[in-house]
Amino acid sequence: MPILKKIAVLPTLLTLGNAVCGFAAIACAGKIDGTEVGEPYFAVSGWLIILAMLFDSLDGYVARLARTASKFGAELDSLCDAVSFGVAPAFLLMRMGPGWTPAPVFHQLLACIAALYVVCAVLRLARFNVEAALDTAGSRRFRGLPSPGAAGCLASLAILRGDLAMGRWSGINLEMVRGGLEVWSILGALAIALLMVSRIPYPHLTKQILRGRRPFSHLIQVILAVFVLVLARELALVLIFWIYGLGIPARYAILRSLRREPRPAAAGLDDVFRR
Amino acid sequence: MPILKKIAVLPTLLTLGNAVCGFAAIACAGKIDGTEVGEPYFAVSGWLIILAMLFDSLDGYVARLARTASKFGAELDSLCDAVSFGVAPAFLLMRMGPGWTPAPVFHQLLACIAALYVVCAVLRLARFNVEAALDTAGSRRFRGLPSPGAAGCLASLAILRGDLAMGRWSGINLEMVRGGLEVWSILGALAIALLMVSRIPYPHLTKQILRGRRPFSHLIQVILAVFVLVLARELALVLIFWIYGLGIPARYAILRSLRREPRPAAAGLDDVFRR
Repeated sequence: MPILKKIAVLPTLLTLGNAVCGFAAIACAGKIDGTEVGEPYFAVSGWLIILAMLFDSLDGYVARLARTASKFGAELDSLCDAVSFGVAPAFLLMRMGPGWTPAPVFHQLLACIAALYVVCAVLRLARFNVEAALDTAGSRRFRGLPSPGAAGCLASLAILRGDLAMGRWSGINLEMVRGGLEVWSILGALAIALLMVSRIPYPHLTKQILRGRRPFSHLIQVILAVFVLVLARELALVLIFWIYGLGIPARYAILRSLRREPRPAAAGLDDVFRR
Repeated sequence: MPILKKIAVLPTLLTLGNAVCGFAAIACAGKIDGTEVGEPYFAVSGWLIILAMLFDSLDGYVARLARTASKFGAELDSLCDAVSFGVAPAFLLMRMGPGWTPAPVFHQLLACIAALYVVCAVLRLARFNVEAALDTAGSRRFRGLPSPGAAGCLASLAILRGDLAMGRWSGINLEMVRGGLEVWSILGALAIALLMVSRIPYPHLTKQILRGRRPFSHLIQVILAVFVLVLARELALVLIFWIYGLGIPARYAILRSLRREPRPAAAGLDDVFRR
């Protein structure tokens, strides 16, 4: 068998950082045991998934800057994505729902949805790899919700739940909010799992926000978004990820029902957030 | 972006069966809580990894039989392998070692080795994908311990431990055996993680055992091996996987130290088991 000789060290390390964060998120979620002691691990596990997303966007960026993008790098990247954005959020989801004791039927439903989430995530990643290899134009749109976006949706809910336990939200009815989060995470996970394997076009957020030349108002929008993110980071994360995950297909469906095709790729993000 | 149009249904379902078994193994391992109630889940989780291996060998076989092997199938296969043979055994490993309470230092060491195991598994899978794409001869040997073999090593230890708890091994000192298994799993996992990314040649077991024409004695060997497997299945699994995992590099090292290169691929498995 021929031998792979040289690889780019820094991008590979960043990609592996993604996998290590994903595995650490799984390990932390494993410490959630249904007692009050385990609740803060929801937040730790969620933030580790967000950190994995950071590594994931850095590795490709560094590889393209250094012109060391390779087949090995692409393969490794999607394998690590399967860990961090497939298994980790699904395992975290299983901890977010009701346990076996009060409601075995709901727990079984949750386990099935979590398995479906993993299946959809690996299908999405495999399909993307095959289509990206054929894509010479370098599209600025994905077909189907990207797996990091889907993982972010579940991670943001977990962070919110962990913060609830740490007393940052005193004065509200904890039990009710937690019950609401349980229902949201189960139904939401089902929706985003199916959106991952759909053909609905999603804008490539980092590409559209950070690259190329843009109107001045675009910069102001980004700065405002960062402010909101810092001020109330838990709710902001939930809003950002779920608007991206569910808002874009909702807009797509509305536009289609009005018998108008959505505008082509060039219109992009500005439009999404302005509506 | 161009669109992936047609895929082979049966092989894809088998590959997804692999991922679902892997995820179920993780979910079961998550129920191990250090109490006696959780101990049987070691065996369940271990058997689910073995079942994932079965799906993994079936999918490629069916795809080749039906001549539907494709790039999409290969990509999906390695993503599912990352779940079942990367994350699942590593997470199970974290449950097999000492908990936080008695020995935080050993637990940290274990967490590091588990993360290293995931990293080595994804590196092994990515390297294999790149090298297999360049390999037109269809080698009957792997470079480095294949990830299902490594996963089998850890799964067999977990099955043994689960069976200990279920009282099938009454009359022996449980505490001592369990302590021995803990040390074995930690040091063994480190060894097999490094062997995965090594260049040591490993025979392709299923290819060598099941395909082509072989001497009559070969069939008798296989039947005897199956008998041993059925008679004492826990120990037999441990022996088979660990002899494959550690015996082959040991033989390789001995042959090299005698300044004789190991025989070429055609000699294969018969030689390995005869020595």
